[in-house]
Amino acid sequence: MAPPFPQSEYDDRLARVRTALVAKGLDAIVIGDPSNINWLTGYDAWSFYTPQIMVVGTDLDPIWMGREMDAGAAKFTTYLNPEQIVGFPEPLVQRPDTHPAVFMADQMKAAGLGGERIGHESDVYYLSYAATNHLKAGLPDATWIDADLLVNWVRVVKTPAELDYMRQAAVIAGKAMQVAYDGCNPGVRQCDLMAEVSAAQIRGTPDFGGDMPAIHPLVLAGEAASTAHPMWTDAPFEADQIVAFELGACRKRYNAGLARTVCLGPPNPALRKTEAAVLEGMDAVVSTFRAGVPCQDVHATWQAVLDRYGLEKKSRIGYSIGVNYAPDWGEHTLSFRPGDTTPVPENAVVHIILGMWMDDWGMEVSETIHVRADDAVCLTNFPREVHVKD
Amino acid sequence: MAPPFPQSEYDDRLARVRTALVAKGLDAIVIGDPSNINWLTGYDAWSFYTPQIMVVGTDLDPIWMGREMDAGAAKFTTYLNPEQIVGFPEPLVQRPDTHPAVFMADQMKAAGLGGERIGHESDVYYLSYAATNHLKAGLPDATWIDADLLVNWVRVVKTPAELDYMRQAAVIAGKAMQVAYDGCNPGVRQCDLMAEVSAAQIRGTPDFGGDMPAIHPLVLAGEAASTAHPMWTDAPFEADQIVAFELGACRKRYNAGLARTVCLGPPNPALRKTEAAVLEGMDAVVSTFRAGVPCQDVHATWQAVLDRYGLEKKSRIGYSIGVNYAPDWGEHTLSFRPGDTTPVPENAVVHIILGMWMDDWGMEVSETIHVRADDAVCLTNFPREVHVKD
Repeated sequence: MAPPFPQSEYDDRLARVRTALVAKGLDAIVIGDPSNINWLTGYDAWSFYTPQIMVVGTDLDPIWMGREMDAGAAKFTTYLNPEQIVGFPEPLVQRPDTHPAVFMADQMKAAGLGGERIGHESDVYYLSYAATNHLKAGLPDATWIDADLLVNWVRVVKTPAELDYMRQAAVIAGKAMQVAYDGCNPGVRQCDLMAEVSAAQIRGTPDFGGDMPAIHPLVLAGEAASTAHPMWTDAPFEADQIVAFELGACRKRYNAGLARTVCLGPPNPALRKTEAAVLEGMDAVVSTFRAGVPCQDVHATWQAVLDRYGLEKKSRIGYSIGVNYAPDWGEHTLSFRPGDTTPVPENAVVHIILGMWMDDWGMEVSETIHVRADDAVCLTNFPREVHVKD
Repeated sequence: MAPPFPQSEYDDRLARVRTALVAKGLDAIVIGDPSNINWLTGYDAWSFYTPQIMVVGTDLDPIWMGREMDAGAAKFTTYLNPEQIVGFPEPLVQRPDTHPAVFMADQMKAAGLGGERIGHESDVYYLSYAATNHLKAGLPDATWIDADLLVNWVRVVKTPAELDYMRQAAVIAGKAMQVAYDGCNPGVRQCDLMAEVSAAQIRGTPDFGGDMPAIHPLVLAGEAASTAHPMWTDAPFEADQIVAFELGACRKRYNAGLARTVCLGPPNPALRKTEAAVLEGMDAVVSTFRAGVPCQDVHATWQAVLDRYGLEKKSRIGYSIGVNYAPDWGEHTLSFRPGDTTPVPENAVVHIILGMWMDDWGMEVSETIHVRADDAVCLTNFPREVHVKD
């Protein structure tokens, strides 16, 4: 096995992160987000449930630190040399009296970081409050600086090779949605349909297989459609239900999202009106994208349509998407909402999700969109209309 | 929809947590682990990727706080009253200049916690360093005390109703493993087999469906079998490969784990010897379990077998398992390893996994085990021997 990208691409990513470190006045950064670790080195394993970090500096090549039994994965999924792979001893796992981060701090000191300016990710899932405090206590002479999202912001701009994987993920997402369309019928248990959907996500195509997407496949049926992220149950779909699916697919850890809505009976006027707003809104949004457009302008395009229909949506309509592990495929950088003036860079990939969650029903339509210099293109080619089965 | 357990069970859980709070001298606790939130109230949604907590006190009923668009899930999956469900405004999501925990701290103050002794989970995935510091800053007159794992330790003892769900999960795990056995053949892509395995996990049985297990299904084939938590690829299985599967299943968020090994050719002597040690070791471990046995005694039983075979395993051999979300189904409480003197309580459920990761191959056998007063019973009934396909 080998990392999914050529070495030149990893070298370029590392150089871009080092530029960001210098710009922030940092000598090094502690990365806890496994997607940032994967993006920098290719590291890929379901090992982030025990403490795992990557340390990289302006003069320090990346060091993976994690559990000893997972060090093997660093050997065959990354380009790292053995001295860049540091496993913490097994007895440190989940102990009340010590912590793997105590060991990691010692390793960082040994790497010459004892008195340096060290950034750290502060709002990520897999670098905990306790771990961070152990790191800080172990390097008391370092200057610790919050550097949350530093790597994420570098990741916003995708390379051609990344775009290729995201296009593959988007193809798989379309296949998974077709399975959802075909199998969603009254009397079918939600779990039976989602089993087939999940299988389609993982099977991929004959040319390329799929990974497990970072977001659990979501089905919003009946009362569950009034909220954004319900879990499936083993209850059957019912006649006349409006069923929204937020699916996606993942290729080499790159995610593409895709949401669509099915109606298991004749659509009512409220659905038809909301659908019209969403379809018009999505067209408007897609046609607004180009390199440099501020996030808030994209949202304003949507809001203008929504206002015309007299409808309301409180939440943002999208975000940057890419390489990610559970539980989120969003990159926590770009957000399409009022007041966000960030310009969308060329070769960003964003997930625009128009989710309308009403009191006792809901619908969703989304697109994963590649923003280019002068326009944008949806990565999945799948009809957006509500799929009526009556 | 309704919570999966009767109200009396949730009342009992809350009473047990309050007893633990009093024992630790706490007035309240901030819970960030979504499995603890689920266990206390039934709350179930894929919403923990944005900040989400539960606050519960000796005199304060549980309050769910999370994103406004997810509050609906609290309404139909829990027993909470509307005043116990607090959604933070959508504009607070992923902002550089503020944080949902600032709002949450204000809510906690309004709930009368401003000057109280407040415990917090410190080493969980979904209550970050930044969020914790915002909570502390927002309640500067409170006394903050690390109360990591307080709820987890209460959860160690399972009720009869919880055991019923875990038995169902274990039945599904056996079905998923049979799919892996049947479909694992040279030339089959790993992703194609894991698609079928994942579908079997989710489909469950005609009587009860499955949830997505908290741990990504793992397949250890070829070089990947030298490490513990590799991801599947779209490479085909090969003749003579030794393939270990760590699967599991999940029912109402209760997980059961199950690992087994397949050999796609004639087994070599090293495999046969390791298999013999593992089978004998598992028998010895299962027969050692009874209420009150110290964790280290269970490990010692295994170590004695291993020593006799002249083999080595550095890592612990198991842990408590139960209700959990990605990325881990372990409860981070009991650990079966030298030096852990914790007595295993009656009605604990543990996952004993004998994973032997060698230089270029590996094998695994595991059982999810219900510890009873005088003995223990494996929840899945599935042959443990290496499944030879040649």
